[in-house]
Formats: sequence, C-alpha cells, structure tokens
Amino acid sequence: MNYMSEAVEQLNVAEVASRARAASRLLAIVPSERRDAALQAAADAIAARQTEILKANQRDCEQALRGVATGHMTGALFERLRITEQSIKQMAAGVRQVAALPDPLGRSLAVTELDEGLTLHKESCPIGVVGIIFEARPEIVPQIAALALKSGNSVILKGGTEAVQSNQALFSIWRQALQQFPEIPAEVINLLYTRDDVSEMLSLADDIDLIIPRGSREFVSHVAEHSSIPVLGHGEGLCHVYVDRAADLPKALSIAFDSKVQYPAACNAMETLLVHEEVAARLLPDLIARFRAAGVEVRGCPRTLKLAEAQVLIAASEEDWATEYSDLIISIRIVASVNEAIAHIDHYGSGHTEAIVTEDRDTAAHFLQRVDAAGVYLNVSTRFADGFRYGFGAELGISTSKLHARGPVGLEGLTTYKYKLIGDGQTVASYVEGERSFTHRRKS
Amino acid sequence: MNYMSEAVEQLNVAEVASRARAASRLLAIVPSERRDAALQAAADAIAARQTEILKANQRDCEQALRGVATGHMTGALFERLRITEQSIKQMAAGVRQVAALPDPLGRSLAVTELDEGLTLHKESCPIGVVGIIFEARPEIVPQIAALALKSGNSVILKGGTEAVQSNQALFSIWRQALQQFPEIPAEVINLLYTRDDVSEMLSLADDIDLIIPRGSREFVSHVAEHSSIPVLGHGEGLCHVYVDRAADLPKALSIAFDSKVQYPAACNAMETLLVHEEVAARLLPDLIARFRAAGVEVRGCPRTLKLAEAQVLIAASEEDWATEYSDLIISIRIVASVNEAIAHIDHYGSGHTEAIVTEDRDTAAHFLQRVDAAGVYLNVSTRFADGFRYGFGAELGISTSKLHARGPVGLEGLTTYKYKLIGDGQTVASYVEGERSFTHRRKS
Repeated sequence: MNYMSEAVEQLNVAEVASRARAASRLLAIVPSERRDAALQAAADAIAARQTEILKANQRDCEQALRGVATGHMTGALFERLRITEQSIKQMAAGVRQVAALPDPLGRSLAVTELDEGLTLHKESCPIGVVGIIFEARPEIVPQIAALALKSGNSVILKGGTEAVQSNQALFSIWRQALQQFPEIPAEVINLLYTRDDVSEMLSLADDIDLIIPRGSREFVSHVAEHSSIPVLGHGEGLCHVYVDRAADLPKALSIAFDSKVQYPAACNAMETLLVHEEVAARLLPDLIARFRAAGVEVRGCPRTLKLAEAQVLIAASEEDWATEYSDLIISIRIVASVNEAIAHIDHYGSGHTEAIVTEDRDTAAHFLQRVDAAGVYLNVSTRFADGFRYGFGAELGISTSKLHARGPVGLEGLTTYKYKLIGDGQTVASYVEGERSFTHRRKS
Repeated sequence: MNYMSEAVEQLNVAEVASRARAASRLLAIVPSERRDAALQAAADAIAARQTEILKANQRDCEQALRGVATGHMTGALFERLRITEQSIKQMAAGVRQVAALPDPLGRSLAVTELDEGLTLHKESCPIGVVGIIFEARPEIVPQIAALALKSGNSVILKGGTEAVQSNQALFSIWRQALQQFPEIPAEVINLLYTRDDVSEMLSLADDIDLIIPRGSREFVSHVAEHSSIPVLGHGEGLCHVYVDRAADLPKALSIAFDSKVQYPAACNAMETLLVHEEVAARLLPDLIARFRAAGVEVRGCPRTLKLAEAQVLIAASEEDWATEYSDLIISIRIVASVNEAIAHIDHYGSGHTEAIVTEDRDTAAHFLQRVDAAGVYLNVSTRFADGFRYGFGAELGISTSKLHARGPVGLEGLTTYKYKLIGDGQTVASYVEGERSFTHRRKS
C-alpha cells in the first residue's frame, strides 16, 4: 500500500486548521482517563502494526539511498530517517511514558476570594492548536502526537519530505487507533505534505495558536521570521562556563570537560570557557591537555596562548567568541574578575545556560542573580539543561525566548490557563457604587 | 522651559534600546527595598513639581485646542490629555500603591531535587526591556514607569504626540528622582518622540523583549503586524452572556444589564446576549424594557423580534454578531440549547470573557470547561474582567492571546523565570554512564 496514493480527503491547509480548531474544542473536555486510554491504544497499534511501519520506512529509505548515491543526502540524515524494530518498540514505550505522566490540565494555579460568594479560579487548560514542523526523524510523529493528546491540544504536523511514507503510516495508525474513542475527533491530529503547506500554515493565526519548529537554528529562525503565529523554539545555544578565582579546581576540570566533551553537538554544550586570571596557570595546562587528548581543538585569547605556549594553540578571533561550534572546538579566555566574565556573557551569550564554578557564596549569588539566561548554574555542567534531566518526563524543546516558556519545555509548555469566576448574581455596579467591596483573599 | 528644546542627548532608537538593555541588567540585582524607595522618591517628586507638570500640560492643551478648533482633535481626546491638580495627586498615589505591592521578583515557583546535592530552583525574574506605546493620556507615564521599576524592567515609552510636553516633563521628573539611587541607571526609563522611532523600535528584537501597545484595537493590531518582538495586547473584546433554561431570571436580568450598561465602552462589556428559548418569553420583555429605558439600542434575531413585537426592535444582521459595539447597543439571539450558545461563542467570540447564568451545576461545568476564553464566568457580570477587581493591585492590560499572559495582566506579566541549578561538581557523564541516577523529588 502506498500511503501517498491513498485517497485521503484532500483539504487545503486553512480547512485542516479550521477542523483542527473545532476538534481541539471537543478534546478540551475529554477526561484524563480517556486521553490516557487513547494513548495506550495508540501505543498498542504502533507495536501491532510494526511490519506496516517498516515497509513504509523501507520505501523512504530506498528513495533516500538514491539521494545518498547521487550526493543529495548525507549518511547522517539517512541514519535519522531509518526505523528499526528497536525504534518502533521505543516509539510505543515513549507514548506509554507520556500516558503515565500526571494530567497537565485542570490544575488549580491560584484561587482568590474576590468577595464572599465570588471566587476566582486560575486553572490550566490546553492552548488549542499547535503546528509542529520537523525534519527527517519519523519517530517525532508519535512523540509529538502523544504530548499533544495528553495536553488536550490538536496538532498539525509537517515532517521532512524524505520521511513522507513513514510519517503517513504512523499518522494513519494513530488516527485509526483513535477511532475506538468516539469523543475524540480524528482531526486532533493532522499531517501536511508540502513546503507550500508550511508557508500557508504560518499565516493562519486565527486557527493555530503556537508553532514549534524543530531542527537547526537556521531553520528555527527562518520559521520565526515568516510566522505571524507565536513560535516556540531556541535560536542558539552559546553557553559559557566561568571558573572563578575561588573555584575548586578538580570540580572545574570535570565540569568544563563534561560541558564540552560529553555531547558537543547539543545546544547546552559549552562553547567558551572563561577563567579567572588567578587560577588560570593552575587549571589550564591540565585541562587543555585533557581536552586535546579527547580530540578537542583549543583556541585561546592572547593570555591563554602565552600561558599554554608549550601546547601550541590557535588564536581565538572575535568570531570565535560569537560562534556556537556544536563540535569538538573550544575557545578559552582569561578574565580579571567575575564582572569581566559576566560582561563577556552579556555580549556573546545566547541566554541559554551559563555556569559558574566557585566556592564563594557571594560571588555565586551575584552571578546567578545577575546573568540573564534561562539556566544559571553553580558548580554543575551546562549539559544538565534538558527536560528529562529536569524531571519534566518529556521534552518539547528548549526555549531561549523569555515569554510563555523559558529553558527546557515539558508538557506544561503546551498549556495555558483560564480564569473561572464563580458567583451568585454579582454586578460590578454594586462595587462601583460602594454597596459592596472586594476582599481579595488569596485561598491557594 | 520648553522640554523639547532642552539639550537632551540625541540618541538613535537602537542606541536607546541597547542602553536600556544594559540598564536592565543592573536593575535586575537592585533589592526590593531600594526599588520601592525609588518609587516613593518618584511619587514625592511628582507631587512636589506639580506646577511644572501643569505648565507643560498647558502648552500641550493650547496646541490641542487649536486642533479642536480646526476639527483635528475631538473633545474626548482633549479631555484625556488634560492634567489637573487632582490627576497629579492620583498619579503620585498610584505610584505609591505600586510600591506597596509584594515584590514580584525572586519568587520561588518550584524546587526540585534532581539528585542528592543537586537542586533545581525555578525563580521569577524580570523580562528585561519592555516597549510601551500609548495614546494621549500622560498619566500613563508614571503608571507604567512604576510597574516597570517595581518588576525590575527597563522601559521605553512612546506617547501620543499631542502630549509630548507633558510626557517629557513627567519623564524628566522621574529620571531626576532616580538620581538619588546611584545603583539604578538613568536608562531604565526612556522616552521616544516620533512615529519613525516606533517603527524602528518594533524591529529591535535583540534589545527589546516585549511590546505593549495601549489604545484602540486597530492600533494594537497594527503594532502586532509590524513587530518582530512579541506583543502583549488585546485585539478585541466581543463578550457574551448566555442565559440558560435553568437560569435564575432576576439574576439574569441584573447580570445582563450590568454587563451591557455599567460601562459600555469597556472591552469586557457584553455585546451579544444569548437566551435559551425556554426562558426567553419570561426574561426578554422586562429586560428589553430596562435596556431601552437606559438608552440601549436593541437588535434581535428573528425570534427575538417576534417575541418583542410590541417593542419594535431592529433586526440583527450577520455583521451585528461579529461587532464589538463598545456602545449602548446590544444584539440578542434566542438559542435552543447550551451547545447552540457555545457554537455561537466559538464562531463570534474573541476569547475575552464569556458568562453563563444558570442554576444547573452540570450545564455550568460544561460551559466553563468547554468555552475557550481568558475568562469563563458563572452567574457574574462580564465587567469583573479587570486586574484591579481580580486583586492584582495594578493592571497592565488585558490579553486575549493565549501565550505568556492571558486575561487581565498584572505585575506578574512583566516577569519571566530562570532556572537556578545548584550542585557540587556534578557531570552529565556520570548519569549517562549509570554511576548516578536522578531522584526528581519535587520539594515545593
């Protein structure tokens, strides 16, 4: 069966979004147990229909192999596209994990008695309709579909064209699994196919509430620029570790090493190390040797170069301080004070994650308060900036924007809140005319 | 003294924003007591320099009067421009009220132990730099300056050109009052002068984090369309009251009357009344009579017209259901069920505030859960949707967007959060390699 030739009802994107909006309104009142049961059913269906998924993926892979042969596709991209029996097991397990998370909806965020018999409840609720644009990896389909269903949102997915058969198979399986739940409309999950569909989607601000682009930072910036809908995504992860004069040097050594080497392609990896001049001579020779042994190319400021003369480093240029290498390259700068380190971070940092290594409580407090970033860390590797490590159970992405959600974003990032005001016939006139007055008693 | 001719250092907008950013970083670490003391000093200065403010305002008013004479300015606009001794007292009192509010910064929002000795703190902090664009009313200057200072944000103000002398006087007084506080940079408050300045401001996404336009909804939409920076503002307030079959009719009568008549120009006033067919005949004749006695023009659906034949109403058109009158006009529609009412609200509502009048708990719960709006009300006038009435102490505006802040927005809307992770040398490698594992114990 070729999914693309299936006679799926052809809708334009505006119609898809409008139906997704209508579906989201019905999904918003489906109780937690039923949303979780639907997630279990979807996980069962993914596991049961493994052969079908593998076949669809094989067609994508054959197509992709021709691209690899002609140089139109890299080997890395091909690897991300491939689905195995093992990855199907992981997809199903991932969906069950989301089902097991606490319900993010209907949480009481605040209760205020405005007056006797007049109570204001601030309660979490779904955002509505979320558009997700992602690149090759097909396992994103069940992952995002699960997060959206759990949080009561309709989702419109657009995956990479290389994965079109795989995505379509997973999408069909998901929709069919939902058929057992008549209270959940099919249109809570939707799949788009072309780049033109994406352009159109980015303009549908009336029916789509949030766009989440996943992929390279160029891709995220491109989407943000072209969208009239709010975008959740991280632009850049240019993270620093600052080793203070009062640092415990063995801690500094392992934190700096972990922050750079443990997984250099991650956005929370360190790009620049800032070292206080009083500890540079004791720290850097060992640290640089360890970096070099791990295959890290080290670039340095003039003082670093002088200090590590024997190790023959490359001079760091102005461009180096502003570059997210995402690779085994590090630039090192020696500074005269914590404030010089902070000034460097102000200038070059991307507001992602910034760490200080120090045993001085005042310096630590100053750094954590003063540095403007989603994560400010004391004596810890920058690599901890991650939704799973933070205990969110699932990660939607990491936000370097300051509004709505900042830092690693979990299920909560797919919720907003509404105010429920419960009274018994109260009018504003009686408060304006002084007949009654507000108590404003915070209950929780 | 003519403020415009004062030799104020002329900076371009990008430079203003960049200095505001630098100032915001220093303001972020000023303790609460000092921010409050600065607010008291600013309030004192406003009260003490009353004559100066009145003189500047007089120049604006003289200019404006020429506009009124030539038909370039309305009387209403002129009234909003005028400052009196009384309004200066109110400005100073408003600033002191903001000083008295609890500190919105450094609040602990969540604490999670990730592992023994590794604790994640989610803490409120300032957003950074906020741009505010407002129309004629000069009292907005101290009001917004106070909210920004309280919440640790730099602010860039652009007021209506009619009020330029008044705004400049208030701005200079505020800046001078801050001079007693050497830890607070002057550039935490900034004033722009021209429409071109605004266009430039809307493009400075690196140095401005949030734009708040205050004014008509056309104005807000215009700003949202032209800004590459997130915008906080409400587009429209098309609010409904639905009177259910199980409504207590005296309550319905007073709620509907209050929602429309108490202050019809407000965005939280009702525009359309939806009435269940089983109670229409008992409710509408009295209610319509009361509306008409209050000067309200009543428009109705065919069934309403038939029912109120004796009262000679106007037929409501399709356009009526979609119009925010902001005036003494109401459209009434008779519906067959709560779901028909909800469908009408889905279609025409703006997501601002929607009320149901009913004594049936199930119907109430369904309406409150199902309707997608910032405020969903049971047996209460829509006019309660307001930051002061909600007990926020100060209101920045009402948001019909679903992200960041929804509904009435108080000081909290000017804050975001950061994650502080406090450890003792932990590396991610030791968790990945299974040497250590996460506990993820929620502490608060």
